Amino acid sequence: MGDNRIITLLTDFGWGDGYIGAMKGVILTINPRCLIIDVAHEISPHDVIRAAMVLGHTYHYFPQRTIHVAVVDPGVGGQRKPLVLETEHYLFVGPDNGVFDLVLKREKGIRAYELAEKRFFLPQVSHTFHGRDVFAPAAAHLSLGTSPGEMGPTVNHDDLITLNIPIPSMEAETLQGEVIYIDHFGNLITNISQEVLREFTVDEMVAIEIGGEMIKGLKSSYTDAAEGEIIALWGSGGFLEISLKERNLHRERGWMKGERVRIRRWR
Amino acid sequence: MGDNRIITLLTDFGWGDGYIGAMKGVILTINPRCLIIDVAHEISPHDVIRAAMVLGHTYHYFPQRTIHVAVVDPGVGGQRKPLVLETEHYLFVGPDNGVFDLVLKREKGIRAYELAEKRFFLPQVSHTFHGRDVFAPAAAHLSLGTSPGEMGPTVNHDDLITLNIPIPSMEAETLQGEVIYIDHFGNLITNISQEVLREFTVDEMVAIEIGGEMIKGLKSSYTDAAEGEIIALWGSGGFLEISLKERNLHRERGWMKGERVRIRRWR
Amino acid sequence: MGDNRIITLLTDFGWGDGYIGAMKGVILTINPRCLIIDVAHEISPHDVIRAAMVLGHTYHYFPQRTIHVAVVDPGVGGQRKPLVLETEHYLFVGPDNGVFDLVLKREKGIRAYELAEKRFFLPQVSHTFHGRDVFAPAAAHLSLGTSPGEMGPTVNHDDLITLNIPIPSMEAETLQGEVIYIDHFGNLITNISQEVLREFTVDEMVAIEIGGEMIKGLKSSYTDAAEGEIIALWGSGGFLEISLKERNLHRERGWMKGERVRIRRWR
Repeated sequence: MGDNRIITLLTDFGWGDGYIGAMKGVILTINPRCLIIDVAHEISPHDVIRAAMVLGHTYHYFPQRTIHVAVVDPGVGGQRKPLVLETEHYLFVGPDNGVFDLVLKREKGIRAYELAEKRFFLPQVSHTFHGRDVFAPAAAHLSLGTSPGEMGPTVNHDDLITLNIPIPSMEAETLQGEVIYIDHFGNLITNISQEVLREFTVDEMVAIEIGGEMIKGLKSSYTDAAEGEIIALWGSGGFLEISLKERNLHRERGWMKGERVRIRRWR
Repeated sequence: MGDNRIITLLTDFGWGDGYIGAMKGVILTINPRCLIIDVAHEISPHDVIRAAMVLGHTYHYFPQRTIHVAVVDPGVGGQRKPLVLETEHYLFVGPDNGVFDLVLKREKGIRAYELAEKRFFLPQVSHTFHGRDVFAPAAAHLSLGTSPGEMGPTVNHDDLITLNIPIPSMEAETLQGEVIYIDHFGNLITNISQEVLREFTVDEMVAIEIGGEMIKGLKSSYTDAAEGEIIALWGSGGFLEISLKERNLHRERGWMKGERVRIRRWR
Repeated sequence: MGDNRIITLLTDFGWGDGYIGAMKGVILTINPRCLIIDVAHEISPHDVIRAAMVLGHTYHYFPQRTIHVAVVDPGVGGQRKPLVLETEHYLFVGPDNGVFDLVLKREKGIRAYELAEKRFFLPQVSHTFHGRDVFAPAAAHLSLGTSPGEMGPTVNHDDLITLNIPIPSMEAETLQGEVIYIDHFGNLITNISQEVLREFTVDEMVAIEIGGEMIKGLKSSYTDAAEGEIIALWGSGGFLEISLKERNLHRERGWMKGERVRIRRWR
């Protein structure tokens, strides 16, 4: 059994459509001994930023040499390149559309190749489903030991697509960020990382304004909140999260992706 | 390790209800060495046509001898027969209610048996959950090498239930089909296959009318569309699909299953 | 290969958030040879009663020595203890918040331990995601053969949290229960078990009142119903279920969790 036995799947496909199943069938036909792991599906359709963040928060928990396949691919059939990335610890397969943004920022020793060698694809490649026809078979061949460099020409690191994840703006008195996604619980995840807040202020004595509400200070866990209290805390991915204890804040207040979050020092 | 190691699951069960989990437990208790693959779940409840199409678009991507279990079973506990089908390449387990319609049309060398031998069921069989009590244990026994013919009497091929999937009507000037399901992205999948369109016209110079909108010609991929343009293209299952670039057409226009699609030659 | 090879996951995490994936990565990094099985996800958020019932209806279908991980954990980061339970047949890992209620009532030879030994956790434990940082690594170590007793101090059985699942009230003429959850099909599952009904009456000649409707007698399967008829029958978990043939009763009538169900003898 080789090193690259685990193939993970992250997609915006719905469970009811069978696209996830077709990818698994293609992989198992090429390598019946690999282990396919469902990491995330039903990501909001075409939401490359969210996919990039979910991938960024999960890939490094897997064993070395895991092959991560990410298929959130609104540009399928168009100009965007199909990629394989080789890093110090992992392999990644998916479209060159920014879905690997966090990977590119964190991993070392990255080599990128365009998936161009048709012998690693399905015999017929559709214009609408490269997850099945290109990415799944490429991942399966990698799990059998094919070297990424055999799959196509090198892509220059500087030519790889990165994302315009909104960056918080920092002024003397205010740090302004925004909600970048909403999770299944209705918690609002912002683009304000612990590193960014530390640059702005030495402690966590801050007032956080969102949608006309003022939140004073951060909690250390959801259970520190009173019933019905809106709180801010560090989410498991290291970003500031706004939450309503055991309730769905997004649904109750209608706050969406893009909602502004302003932070001031508080004394 | 035997040949029939892979068991796939396709159901209309919700992930939150535990029915999927119960089936897996039953299978692993009988054969802890088999590989269970989630192909599709949360198919719209009781939608046998959709299940048949999802199965039809996925099963043939799996390795030979895969055992496909399909449980979309509104008639559970009633008269419909529990089946095992053996084809040239695969085994199928599920209710005789049309869910195997596309399989029956495409596979060769089909032999069908009624699941009747109670020794291959759970000791207690409920009237509401044959997925757990009948189909899962039968599949697990097949994966251990039990021959389908041991499980019950032969069913005549002509007696197997097929579906009334709406067939497009072709007249001199018009080919009329309809939307048969809507995927997770809100794309509308019609019953018009490439074969049917080729019968109607030699090229793809067609005008497609749906809900008062006129679409001229087919695109080859989603990325060929302008922002906000409604397009038609061949979906990954080989059927005509109506789509709105990176948006949810179903939700924005309210077009549903059954919506008519009229095609005329266009010059 | 050890005995404890199977690890099941039951969570209220959404498929699109990556939390499920992160747990799997942690487990596979510690034990790449274990078999991870998705039993249930997207359970209604924070609904510990529903999680307890789904777990109670599924765990016993799995092979002996299966390790069941249940993460529906609204109190994460607070006072509730992280637990490992060892029973005659299984191991369970999750929070001490009632999610193991049915397990505690049914399993024998239960020994409970608080997960306290930090060497079995991830090096950094967040306040918001013990599924990834505490429960996943503990389960993986159990699958490698670590004894539950090594993981922390014994917890007295009487100190374990149980649930206030509403208990039906029985009077001379009336048995009153309620809807405790609604499944993916829109069927209403009540808290009235076969045992409770048998205590109330010797046969199933009962009239069941819900939301102003009167249902006479029980059906043995969904297919016994006429089109549009509201029926009562025994669900696959052994509880009385109210259902509308091939339709979503919950959505059509608006009946919710907590809706009262009154049963009278009927002649």
